[in-house]
Amino acid sequence: MNIQESVRPMTREDVASERQMANAIRALAMDAVQKAKSGHPGMPMGMADAATVLFNRFIKLDPSMPNWPDRDRFVLSAGHGSMLQYALHHLLGYEDMPIEELKRFRRLGSRTAGHPEYGHASGIETTTGPLGQGIATAVGMALAERMMAARFGAELVDHFTYVIAGDGCLQEGISHEAVDLAGHLKLSRLIVLWDDNAISIDGPTSLSTSMDQLERFEAAGWETCSIDGHDLEMVAAAILRAQQSKRPSFIACRTKIGKGAPNLEGSEKTHGAPLGEDEIAATRANIGWVFPPFTVPQTVKSSWEEVAARGARARREWQARLEAYPRRAAFEEAMAGSLPETVFEALADFRMTHGEQATKVATRKASEMALEVINAATDITVGGSADLTHSNLTITKTLRPVSAGDYSGRYIHFGIREHGMAAAMNGIALHGGAVPYGGTFLVFSDYARGAMRLSALMGQRVIYVMTHDSIGLGEDGPTHQPVEHLAMLRATPNINVFRPADIIETAECWELALKATDRPSVLALSRQALPMVREAHGEENHSARGAYVLRETNGPRDVTLIATGSEVEIARDAADMLLERHSVRAALVSMPCWELFEEQDDAYRDTVLGSGPRIAVEAAARMGWDRWIGENGRFVGMNGFGASAPAAELYRYFGITPDAVTDAALALLEEGA
Amino acid sequence: MNIQESVRPMTREDVASERQMANAIRALAMDAVQKAKSGHPGMPMGMADAATVLFNRFIKLDPSMPNWPDRDRFVLSAGHGSMLQYALHHLLGYEDMPIEELKRFRRLGSRTAGHPEYGHASGIETTTGPLGQGIATAVGMALAERMMAARFGAELVDHFTYVIAGDGCLQEGISHEAVDLAGHLKLSRLIVLWDDNAISIDGPTSLSTSMDQLERFEAAGWETCSIDGHDLEMVAAAILRAQQSKRPSFIACRTKIGKGAPNLEGSEKTHGAPLGEDEIAATRANIGWVFPPFTVPQTVKSSWEEVAARGARARREWQARLEAYPRRAAFEEAMAGSLPETVFEALADFRMTHGEQATKVATRKASEMALEVINAATDITVGGSADLTHSNLTITKTLRPVSAGDYSGRYIHFGIREHGMAAAMNGIALHGGAVPYGGTFLVFSDYARGAMRLSALMGQRVIYVMTHDSIGLGEDGPTHQPVEHLAMLRATPNINVFRPADIIETAECWELALKATDRPSVLALSRQALPMVREAHGEENHSARGAYVLRETNGPRDVTLIATGSEVEIARDAADMLLERHSVRAALVSMPCWELFEEQDDAYRDTVLGSGPRIAVEAAARMGWDRWIGENGRFVGMNGFGASAPAAELYRYFGITPDAVTDAALALLEEGA
Repeated sequence: MNIQESVRPMTREDVASERQMANAIRALAMDAVQKAKSGHPGMPMGMADAATVLFNRFIKLDPSMPNWPDRDRFVLSAGHGSMLQYALHHLLGYEDMPIEELKRFRRLGSRTAGHPEYGHASGIETTTGPLGQGIATAVGMALAERMMAARFGAELVDHFTYVIAGDGCLQEGISHEAVDLAGHLKLSRLIVLWDDNAISIDGPTSLSTSMDQLERFEAAGWETCSIDGHDLEMVAAAILRAQQSKRPSFIACRTKIGKGAPNLEGSEKTHGAPLGEDEIAATRANIGWVFPPFTVPQTVKSSWEEVAARGARARREWQARLEAYPRRAAFEEAMAGSLPETVFEALADFRMTHGEQATKVATRKASEMALEVINAATDITVGGSADLTHSNLTITKTLRPVSAGDYSGRYIHFGIREHGMAAAMNGIALHGGAVPYGGTFLVFSDYARGAMRLSALMGQRVIYVMTHDSIGLGEDGPTHQPVEHLAMLRATPNINVFRPADIIETAECWELALKATDRPSVLALSRQALPMVREAHGEENHSARGAYVLRETNGPRDVTLIATGSEVEIARDAADMLLERHSVRAALVSMPCWELFEEQDDAYRDTVLGSGPRIAVEAAARMGWDRWIGENGRFVGMNGFGASAPAAELYRYFGITPDAVTDAALALLEEGA
Repeated sequence: MNIQESVRPMTREDVASERQMANAIRALAMDAVQKAKSGHPGMPMGMADAATVLFNRFIKLDPSMPNWPDRDRFVLSAGHGSMLQYALHHLLGYEDMPIEELKRFRRLGSRTAGHPEYGHASGIETTTGPLGQGIATAVGMALAERMMAARFGAELVDHFTYVIAGDGCLQEGISHEAVDLAGHLKLSRLIVLWDDNAISIDGPTSLSTSMDQLERFEAAGWETCSIDGHDLEMVAAAILRAQQSKRPSFIACRTKIGKGAPNLEGSEKTHGAPLGEDEIAATRANIGWVFPPFTVPQTVKSSWEEVAARGARARREWQARLEAYPRRAAFEEAMAGSLPETVFEALADFRMTHGEQATKVATRKASEMALEVINAATDITVGGSADLTHSNLTITKTLRPVSAGDYSGRYIHFGIREHGMAAAMNGIALHGGAVPYGGTFLVFSDYARGAMRLSALMGQRVIYVMTHDSIGLGEDGPTHQPVEHLAMLRATPNINVFRPADIIETAECWELALKATDRPSVLALSRQALPMVREAHGEENHSARGAYVLRETNGPRDVTLIATGSEVEIARDAADMLLERHSVRAALVSMPCWELFEEQDDAYRDTVLGSGPRIAVEAAARMGWDRWIGENGRFVGMNGFGASAPAAELYRYFGITPDAVTDAALALLEEGA
């Protein structure tokens, strides 16, 4: 898109009106926070001017079609200033944001939650609130835009990602990861407006930082400038310059928090509490806003409606281009995230083929082999790793890395930035056009937690390839050996946590992860080689039910052994030992995904778990297993942190062996006898 | 200490010998990795020269008294290069690091774990491996040094904190938080040597970063320079300049990874794998190291012994000063982290007083009240918050903030940096002299996870004041409402997770946290006011047993209600309702700390839990509760993410009410009947 086309030239009358357009945001924000008796009025009031210029003169979106693929993305990284976004949506005429919603700010069931929630109201591009997530997610969106543009051309994909970030966003570590990655990849369509108000919750930011933010962003390869965030023309000039830059842009908007409030402007008191009736009245007088609460005069409304009309025109023009576009179906399928059926056919073939060969490989290797099949069958998977490519085994033959200036690849070197990777994957998924997966060690889900939780909360299909999933990684020791991480992830709502036991289950779990379009998945994969434990194989995806009987007993069950991942082999050997040496009939259950098992009906679950004594085997914390083994069950696993030694020694040292499982079973049967 | 005194002037012969001192590190590193068949030789070989200059000419430590309080702290932030540290320890003559330990690198039970583990060998100041943790922990150490110096004077506290950091450390987000905080506080005794080898695991760092690190550190207020990391005199000059700076210093040491290996030098192939016998032989020839594996000639040994001797002299001089020091006992008590008995007496008084008043306050407020008592009774507690001081209620009347140039305060504005805060607290605890506590919202334990895990792994008394601990925080919505976080923290080994129900339990839990010197504690505290539920009160700390019967039934129990924190009130009301309306006798159990309850004997646990049906009530994920409620128990809590609304509405919406608990109890009794 030609930049000039999008910029409406301003006349003197327009400028006056633009200030009132901003005052509409101020008034709505302070009124809604007051009515809700909680919220953050200071930020929307401080950034009202800059946001108005951004939306009035630049932004490209169509409130009547909020998900139009080529819209600009707007991310309110300083999510506590949610009333800025809700006010904008209302003024722009989003149908689902009538004035009643603003009056219901922070009420149960409203679209106007305390922080912007993806999916609660149209046009909210991502959930924000946990600081720094917005800017880091926006990096993923801006990258997805460039990748889609490389694939489908500027006629279909040519938009900006705008971010409003606060001091908190820039102090959080995740911002460093995001800023570095964006600068490195020269994501020129990313424009960050920093609400440089020098106030955080505890008081002046000088309490805790002396960072020269401009210098910091320049060090990362960004275009930067600092402007008066209340000077409309300066804001416009800065955005125009940013649009023309070959690098991502950082615009420091010097603002006063709570701008317009005569007694509180510039104070942290406006940050997180209502202004109070008196100060609101004084603010109205001060900014010349004579209208009652929640009331916007028609002149101001009309100005905002023009913004929407401009966006609608741009959208219709784009629609015309789409209709003439030769590869329209491919574009639409990519945006929808539709995987061709051939992906799943190829995975089914893969399972059949390897099922016959009894392939013994690490599940991380099995994952790589499955990915070879998947990535060959579709163009829309995009892989990456946080600098552990050849440990996570996330790259496949046809994937070339993305780099600054060449976005046609499908592999992202995310750098040593697990948190930034997870947030960027959220951004890619939210933008549309790709199914992202990314790798690190399972233990470093610790570093990525903040963004992984948002994957779950937003229900995004982001696939985490988490290898080195237990003490089985060996010598790297306890800092690298996950113990509590499976429990942590399983406790998190709306994530499927897969821990496949062999090559067949790995392929099954990949299939399930790709098909779970409403949630993220974690694949916990072994470093060490694992034998194929699936004896019967066929078309059915057994992992789809979360757990299943891998080997039933011949005759009534004496005990049921339940295991996941690398411990299924151990449980299987224990079952053999129990039968051969002790004539004890032990059924073997593989449980690759708790969440899917929970979704099964009681009858199926009872069949799998059996009515007798149960033992769980997992080289991880016990937390949660009692649900499956019952009050008298046993758990063979970790009781504390790991250690540094070869894997086989560690399994013996921590007592996670067929012998230990056998002993536990015999003790349990003894008790019951 | 006069800087010049510590710097030994170099003659030509010394310089030659210094290169061989470095070669000793190279040889030991490549030999040990080869023998272990795993590990990272490239980094120790690349940084051998710079490390040798640092240790040979500057560092102040006494291997015969590794915990001497005024020693310099050395942190190998790039922990995968652990052989650098082990080689140094061996060469310096640490008694617990004989050559046999180097031969046992990465073996079970050795002191030479894959990554440096605090407590495994003397002189390891902190556990590293998860990247960025070292540099962020070092910030806490350097801050503790300044705070102790402010309190006890330069005659007792006057040392440097040296860090060797790699590219990974600087890419991780936590480094941003640490670097910003250190620059802001002008921690001039912090000196970071960056192993600027331009190689990460995936290959050249240019795959993922274009950061100008010097500019970045300058933006944060650091002294910076870039040198040839193999030029011994340049390294020495840079360290000398850094020692004299008024700001923290960042020295970019341009190095070749695997320096000395003729065919692999400069390649990522040396990063994480043994060089192989042939390349090791070629390296020996190349660097003129003619000695067999694990053999260091006496000339080189002698040079290293001189370093130790210099340190021993400095330590003896310090010891003399300590003996003449008027407040010696206070210094030693602070370094030992000994809290006076008056702290606990004051807390006991607090409980008695408030127990009589039935004070209804939020547990975060109760925590503030307890802290007033604690901080008045001791000087060694140091508080802080990640920019939520007046939400976490972590500051008390007598605490003044620490600032650049005035380190005499006891309160730290950590900024919006949860991860950096946690790591800095680890550093403060490890340094000695203070008992650190720091606040944020419980949900943001997500951001701090990486460092919290290290608090636990290292067994450090770091106290996390985590307020806003459930949907009870209300309108901020699901991004701010913890659900899975209690499970995540409880699943983590070696942390006590406290969730007190009222003001009395809060004071008890504070007492327990302060007394748990071998592990971190988390206090999960409510935003909302809670009534006093403890009916009987007295000297005994009931929370010390983890769970206890808050109210026994009159007659045999029909059901046991188990709750924590803010849900104890709900369970209590349900118990009342059950008795009054349904003549059901429900015992009420408060369970403020699972970990301590797990440590009790079976008899006590059985008494508390009872033999009948049980219901758990907690506004959090179910994960883990099955252990306490048994197979047929019920759980009243969260099944997914929260929502944005006033707290009372949320409790009703999610069905966590006395009515819901009553219904669950009736249904459970029905089933059993």
